[in-house]
Amino acid sequence: MSESAVLLDAACSGDRTALARLLSLIERGGPEARTIGRLSFGRGGRASTIGITGAPGAGKSTLTSALVGRVRQRGTEVAVLAVDPSSPFTGGAILGDRVRMSDHSLDRGVFIRSMATRGHLGGLSVAVPEAVRLLDAVGFPLVIVETVGVGQVEVEIVGEADTTVVVVNPGWGDAVQANKAGLMEIADVFVVNKADRAGLRDTLTDIERMLSLRSTEGWRPPVVATTATTGEGVDELLDAIEAHQQWSIAGGDREARRARRTEVELDRILTMAMLAKVTELHDGEDWHRILDAVRSQRLDPWSAIDELLG
Amino acid sequence: MSESAVLLDAACSGDRTALARLLSLIERGGPEARTIGRLSFGRGGRASTIGITGAPGAGKSTLTSALVGRVRQRGTEVAVLAVDPSSPFTGGAILGDRVRMSDHSLDRGVFIRSMATRGHLGGLSVAVPEAVRLLDAVGFPLVIVETVGVGQVEVEIVGEADTTVVVVNPGWGDAVQANKAGLMEIADVFVVNKADRAGLRDTLTDIERMLSLRSTEGWRPPVVATTATTGEGVDELLDAIEAHQQWSIAGGDREARRARRTEVELDRILTMAMLAKVTELHDGEDWHRILDAVRSQRLDPWSAIDELLG
Repeated sequence: MSESAVLLDAACSGDRTALARLLSLIERGGPEARTIGRLSFGRGGRASTIGITGAPGAGKSTLTSALVGRVRQRGTEVAVLAVDPSSPFTGGAILGDRVRMSDHSLDRGVFIRSMATRGHLGGLSVAVPEAVRLLDAVGFPLVIVETVGVGQVEVEIVGEADTTVVVVNPGWGDAVQANKAGLMEIADVFVVNKADRAGLRDTLTDIERMLSLRSTEGWRPPVVATTATTGEGVDELLDAIEAHQQWSIAGGDREARRARRTEVELDRILTMAMLAKVTELHDGEDWHRILDAVRSQRLDPWSAIDELLG
Repeated sequence: MSESAVLLDAACSGDRTALARLLSLIERGGPEARTIGRLSFGRGGRASTIGITGAPGAGKSTLTSALVGRVRQRGTEVAVLAVDPSSPFTGGAILGDRVRMSDHSLDRGVFIRSMATRGHLGGLSVAVPEAVRLLDAVGFPLVIVETVGVGQVEVEIVGEADTTVVVVNPGWGDAVQANKAGLMEIADVFVVNKADRAGLRDTLTDIERMLSLRSTEGWRPPVVATTATTGEGVDELLDAIEAHQQWSIAGGDREARRARRTEVELDRILTMAMLAKVTELHDGEDWHRILDAVRSQRLDPWSAIDELLG
């Protein structure tokens, strides 16, 4: 049995150290990540996923922590992936994990983990779905994916969750910025966090106005006001999330979204595989042979690449 | 004989309409562009290339036009490619060509053409070297590649010329901006154009200071002050360019640069070919079969892509 298979069996039996090790291997990419992906693929498919995104400083970590508390009160185990594409290494993120963990450190029903990019091909957009699948495979019925910022990759990753939560703050223009970042299109639930601050009513109006421009068919995203630091509104948020999950399961929306997600993921893996092939060919023996042929005008570049590929 | 071969024969006999048609086909990309590339590859290799870049408004077109005048006085035929990655179509660029041409419209020894991206894979970074090779193949001993701006693609393209000319203007900070855009590293000759304006001395000092930070080995880029509108300094610029060309041919620098350029070009074509393969596979018959297999959990994504590729 491979090391990955041993680790996966241990992780499925509740070994958190084994789980953390598997996630590190997925983060690093390469053949081991693929083996883990293959092994965990058949074992999952039952977990629901929630994506949480919003501008830095919107209070997403505090909100996630409060949400995890409510989820646990309702008796559900939960894993949190905090995604940070801007950090090349997880050093800082791991420190962040300890801070995040402090509220739930004694609760074995909660697993929190940060993921950063290691700059390998495909990066987080391939690693995150793989990590979610692993957390699903080891038995978490709920996986929350939270992003640090609202970059393209982050919006993409979070938008692929079963339910996507967009967090803004009260104050002029915050909702407009969220709209510009492409968050309005992916939101299933809106949260105005730090609701005790001035400007709540204006922000709620802004969001409703933008929502009125969306299609009237299908799900209409509810807007929930929260103060994550006091816990105010967090139960209502969880209710809104669960309402969306029930709606999307009942109406076939979740199945359709997952089907689209599978195609996107296959596309990414295919592109990754092809670019890995480019590197392999570039580092291979034939490369210098065809390079010499082109340099000495014996072969044109297009024919050279045809020869290399054929 | 293919249409491209007929056009190429005509272009080599001096048919400018055939040449323009071939350049349009290269600009469009695809199989015809490749055929032209194959046909013209064997016929060239003699032309020298000059790249001219600098911020928009630096007076590059006027300078190029003045330079073309001096080149013609010295009896050399010359082709100019004006590269504009920001424009999706050549409509505007073609209008620009007519304005540019006006100074040289009666001179059959000058050929001026704009290239814009059509958004196809690889875009200008593949099309421009191909276009230069064609202009070389039809007999132009000198090809000038001029960019509209200083974006990454433009700096890359111009930096691959045998001699790269960087144009700045007098005034505080212009040379510093050029440095930030990565132009200091690629410059073989510096031009301070609009030299009749205030601030010439400061800009010359800025450039000399930055040059003093470069390696003391090899070619030291001369700095020439020009006023393109009056022709002041343009002869000195052409002398500086020719000095660099002689130096680089004599010392082997040109050969080394062309060898590097060939590898970069092969890399680009390889990446392009692989990404084209991604599109082909995605549009092919097997795609839906493996997609169904993954959606129904019969196959994990990595194995699915292996199957698609194998």
